[in-house]
Amino acid sequence: MIKIKLICVGKLKESFWEEAQKEYIKRLQKFCKFELVEIPEKNQTSTAEETLQKEGKLILEKLEGKSVLFDVSGEQLSSPQLAEFLENSSLFSSTICFVIGSSHGVSEEVKRQVTSRISFGRITLPHNLARVVALEQIYRAFNIISGTSYHK
Amino acid sequence: MIKIKLICVGKLKESFWEEAQKEYIKRLQKFCKFELVEIPEKNQTSTAEETLQKEGKLILEKLEGKSVLFDVSGEQLSSPQLAEFLENSSLFSSTICFVIGSSHGVSEEVKRQVTSRISFGRITLPHNLARVVALEQIYRAFNIISGTSYHK
Repeated sequence: MIKIKLICVGKLKESFWEEAQKEYIKRLQKFCKFELVEIPEKNQTSTAEETLQKEGKLILEKLEGKSVLFDVSGEQLSSPQLAEFLENSSLFSSTICFVIGSSHGVSEEVKRQVTSRISFGRITLPHNLARVVALEQIYRAFNIISGTSYHK
Repeated sequence: MIKIKLICVGKLKESFWEEAQKEYIKRLQKFCKFELVEIPEKNQTSTAEETLQKEGKLILEKLEGKSVLFDVSGEQLSSPQLAEFLENSSLFSSTICFVIGSSHGVSEEVKRQVTSRISFGRITLPHNLARVVALEQIYRAFNIISGTSYHK
């Protein structure tokens, strides 16, 4: 069973995002070993660049296998293309990491080190909603691969 | 104050989507008169095409002013572009309707009658999550127009 690690910066604040996350993680566990890693969001006592570098260092420590950064400037994929990407990646790695930065993004170092950068589209999403969309899209990808009726 | 009407097909099932919707509607009410219209999802006793036409007829009855269909094949806008679109539309109409179809989409008639078709990106979203993303994007657009610090 493939391992999916979702690396996020910061915590979800509202309980409805927590509940949505819980639901998708429950559903994902039919398809993969799922691990959620929450990197603490650093206080903005230092410059924005220094904050991103501190967070980035912690993200890089957690990376393993193939890694994908969700990034508005990344390659835009449709849901079936994400499924194809996941299927293909699983041929080469038993772990796939997905990374979502804070509302300030991620450091240049993280952008350089990840295997791929994927975009959901041109809209800006708050990081809590981006996390729920990411979970739903990964779940959808597994459903597409498995040929279940969830994806239309 | 501009009126925003969000026309959706079907109900939200999970309570966490209901809570997310409630939160964004509360926030939106600082910026607009907001109305949510839920068209009942028709049972699939007839063909898919007949179902879409029945739902479509009810959607068309509720349209007023400028209308925007969220549609994966529509024009893809960034969040600042959606804000510009909203600002521009408000010059010509005191009401703007946003339409989200069921998981089967909307009838051809609805596609023809709406003023614009806008896409969030190439990914397929379930209609409950699409509704939350739409509410967040409309809220974000008002923040961009108002120059608040919500949008980064």
